Amino acid sequence: MATLYGAIEAGGTKFVCAVGRGPDALLETATFPTTEPEKTFGQCLAFFRDVASEHGKLASLGIASFGPIDCRVGSEAYGYITTTPKEGWAQTDFVGTFAKALDLPVGFDTDVNAAALAEWRWGCARDLDTCLYVTVGTGIGGGFVHRGTTLKGLLHPEMGHVRIHRLPEDGYSGNCPYHGHQCLEGLAAGPALAKRWGTQADALPPDHIAWTWQADYLAQAAVNWIVTLSPEVIVLGGGVMQQQHLFPQIRDRVRALLNGYLQVPAILDASPDFIRQPGLGTQSGILGALALAMDAA
Amino acid sequence: MATLYGAIEAGGTKFVCAVGRGPDALLETATFPTTEPEKTFGQCLAFFRDVASEHGKLASLGIASFGPIDCRVGSEAYGYITTTPKEGWAQTDFVGTFAKALDLPVGFDTDVNAAALAEWRWGCARDLDTCLYVTVGTGIGGGFVHRGTTLKGLLHPEMGHVRIHRLPEDGYSGNCPYHGHQCLEGLAAGPALAKRWGTQADALPPDHIAWTWQADYLAQAAVNWIVTLSPEVIVLGGGVMQQQHLFPQIRDRVRALLNGYLQVPAILDASPDFIRQPGLGTQSGILGALALAMDAA
Repeated sequence: MATLYGAIEAGGTKFVCAVGRGPDALLETATFPTTEPEKTFGQCLAFFRDVASEHGKLASLGIASFGPIDCRVGSEAYGYITTTPKEGWAQTDFVGTFAKALDLPVGFDTDVNAAALAEWRWGCARDLDTCLYVTVGTGIGGGFVHRGTTLKGLLHPEMGHVRIHRLPEDGYSGNCPYHGHQCLEGLAAGPALAKRWGTQADALPPDHIAWTWQADYLAQAAVNWIVTLSPEVIVLGGGVMQQQHLFPQIRDRVRALLNGYLQVPAILDASPDFIRQPGLGTQSGILGALALAMDAA
Repeated sequence: MATLYGAIEAGGTKFVCAVGRGPDALLETATFPTTEPEKTFGQCLAFFRDVASEHGKLASLGIASFGPIDCRVGSEAYGYITTTPKEGWAQTDFVGTFAKALDLPVGFDTDVNAAALAEWRWGCARDLDTCLYVTVGTGIGGGFVHRGTTLKGLLHPEMGHVRIHRLPEDGYSGNCPYHGHQCLEGLAAGPALAKRWGTQADALPPDHIAWTWQADYLAQAAVNWIVTLSPEVIVLGGGVMQQQHLFPQIRDRVRALLNGYLQVPAILDASPDFIRQPGLGTQSGILGALALAMDAA
């Protein structure tokens, strides 16, 4: 029988837990609301203990977490959610709590680094050297895999805060508490769309000017990521990217903004394989956590 | 006797050749103007043959080249300088020419990726997971090392073309043939400074407003690189960065633009070790080529 792994995809709204033997063999999953650490952690721990009593001991646990987190092995605050504005969650020892309670090795990374890892290992970036994964939802975040390893350094990528230029016709003051309308998250995350237009993003029809602007903002950010990371694929996931009509608009706009500078077919042909939806659908995050568990075992 | 390696730092103005046994043991160096491939290559080949006849056979050669280049192993055009506007140099088989003429294994990467590698291996980024190296001179380019490997993907990074926002008081139309004033190179490379102010950059006094703007543009770009790559160190080299008064201005501006978002001392304290001059002085490029040779041997 193949080894059994635990996985947590920890988001600001909900925690998804799973136990499985591989990406196509998830045995059990459960979802709990993100309330306060003690309560949500307790529900997750109870789930893993229940599953272990039924299926056998887990080899390891992978945690793909909202951030900012400290995921630099050897750092004093390794394993913590650090300065999040989410009430009750700042300076929370995530890895320590689970490692001690379940007596397991634990892998730990950002939700988006984990999603990039899952897309690289099992999804649309297999056999590539690089994979960029960006989620556009309540917030915007990006993760990156280079030769099988997620990118971590000073901290971890915080790609939602890449600087872009607000369109002259857009008078919205922006929704980022740190950067106003000067970063991508401030202009293009779900809440920015909702506040600018006075309605939830998914209530805006596909031909609404909102989407033209949204494609421009995501394309500006994509150009910055392309010239900096040179990714072979840019995977865009998250709630806002359920608007499939955005994808061709973003690809066209990226081609226009680069203006012939990068002579590669992926860009010149606005290839549908280059800027694309997740290969793993909505599973990138939880399977990323599973990948972290497998690497930690 | 330690192994002997050859190294070429190939720039748009000059080629620097060296032979050595390690970073502190360069035996011979020579510099040739970048004229046309046949002539410049011929001078380099003569140099390496001369040195080999005196010191013994080289184990390998490392080439750190201006670009764009194809440095993706396995690609059809691997080893070529590709679409450069530099007359006579487009579609030039760099690696093939030297591998055949000298009968050696050849390592090949961008000049800036190689410089990042040298700073990581022997310079100011030793023991770190990440190193960003950016040169600001006739052009602007950036290279990145992640866990000892240079970043290559769709192509290679082209960080000079990161999008930044021209200051409202700056009326200069920009010098990038592709992106005008919408990218860093268009606003902040040496020729942009010279054309905007009607004089060579090094003739502008340190208190000239030119440097305030320059620091702002480099800081905008640095913020985009920080949130995307999360580098532990940003090394700024090249002719324009000889203006040492720029460094504290850039650090202060990066802190101001991030506005408290990243709670790390390197940024909050505007640490002089975070955004800094090359640890290897003007040797990062040629030692990077040496590092490529050592990895290819």
